[in-house]
Amino acid sequence: MHVESIEVITAILDENDRVAQHNREHFDAQGVLAINLMSSPGSGKTSLLEATIKALAGEMKVAVIEGDLATENDAARIRACGVPAVQIQTGNACHLDAQMVHDVLHDLPLGGLDVLFVENVGNLVCPASFDLGVHRNVTLLSVPEGDDKPAKYPVMFRAGDLTLITKVDLLPHIEEFSVDRARDSLRQVGFDGTIIEVSKRGGAGFTAWLDWLRSAVAAAQAQKRNVGTAHAEAAS
Amino acid sequence: MHVESIEVITAILDENDRVAQHNREHFDAQGVLAINLMSSPGSGKTSLLEATIKALAGEMKVAVIEGDLATENDAARIRACGVPAVQIQTGNACHLDAQMVHDVLHDLPLGGLDVLFVENVGNLVCPASFDLGVHRNVTLLSVPEGDDKPAKYPVMFRAGDLTLITKVDLLPHIEEFSVDRARDSLRQVGFDGTIIEVSKRGGAGFTAWLDWLRSAVAAAQAQKRNVGTAHAEAAS
Repeated sequence: MHVESIEVITAILDENDRVAQHNREHFDAQGVLAINLMSSPGSGKTSLLEATIKALAGEMKVAVIEGDLATENDAARIRACGVPAVQIQTGNACHLDAQMVHDVLHDLPLGGLDVLFVENVGNLVCPASFDLGVHRNVTLLSVPEGDDKPAKYPVMFRAGDLTLITKVDLLPHIEEFSVDRARDSLRQVGFDGTIIEVSKRGGAGFTAWLDWLRSAVAAAQAQKRNVGTAHAEAAS
Repeated sequence: MHVESIEVITAILDENDRVAQHNREHFDAQGVLAINLMSSPGSGKTSLLEATIKALAGEMKVAVIEGDLATENDAARIRACGVPAVQIQTGNACHLDAQMVHDVLHDLPLGGLDVLFVENVGNLVCPASFDLGVHRNVTLLSVPEGDDKPAKYPVMFRAGDLTLITKVDLLPHIEEFSVDRARDSLRQVGFDGTIIEVSKRGGAGFTAWLDWLRSAVAAAQAQKRNVGTAHAEAAS
């Protein structure tokens, strides 16, 4: 690549990191856990959010930022579950960036929220390079995609704190996927986070995902209390 | 976006178009039909190629350029079918470009070939913006991805001459996909090409795909004869 284009890309990523840090300060100040969901198109991000919102109704306050090149479809699906959602339409852009997320925070009050999900554009490459200011990155790998995807898209899977293997109810119909091979492939590319298998039919994996979420929310809220205590001590 | 980054991107695309035209001249000079296959990760591009190569054995001479961020897996799968394949490993790059294709043409003699397939990086956004110098763009949409993908990734589907709806054997298990809704969605985003439903189990759709391919090969070879005749007439 040309030197001038490398310089421009580096400048774009530096500016993105600055805005991402600013977003994180917003989230931390409110004790809101922010989670970036990434995957190929059609791996089940929105379906996972619908099921999660229903399962946590009355327990957690959730809001969602949806990213797509076009349509408001996903935000409409989330609003139908009774929680606030804003849609970012990226046009030709293949990923969300920190500024896009920052721009919609004005339309999404953070006060009182427990979790903010950011559903990124369906793309197993580009979103991994842009920090949004979230606390956790979750990558979905759906059974019909095949268990070779971590080896072929290592940057994305390494960027995640949690990999959810989705659509495991389809395992009997998909010979190209073995959960053992997928787990091996994730470890081989250097992913050292948690791996959970989920299905839209619920079950043990879905419960494990909710528990992972509860722990992460508790950590974000403890972080807010610590920040508050430190401020109070500094002021006293 | 900053003015300077727009200028750099425009310069990159202009240079890509120049190299793409050069690639096309190579293909035309040999009467080789070049086809770019694009889709999400795991939509069945390599499986389609394996089945196509087997079905056309003895009828057409085929070669394949494989694009992935990492691994030689797909090239190895194609070579196991008995045809030449070269693997491009893009590293962090989210798409193939014309220069990458040009660079590997030295390793892939075009003489005597009928079809050169270029399997792009699995990505439903970025590959659509980079002409590789091919004659036809084919986009795959797999049933498990859901029938809303044309609406959400309109640029990619509009860029295609043919949309293959793949994995239709999974239709009984996937409530998120109706072939009628997918066809409507393709027409609504302005796709005016051919739509064919295929399954790894063969059947009428797979025969229609082979016929589409035979027609396109015949057109490329007629083009070569016309160019040859025009050259002969110009020289006489």
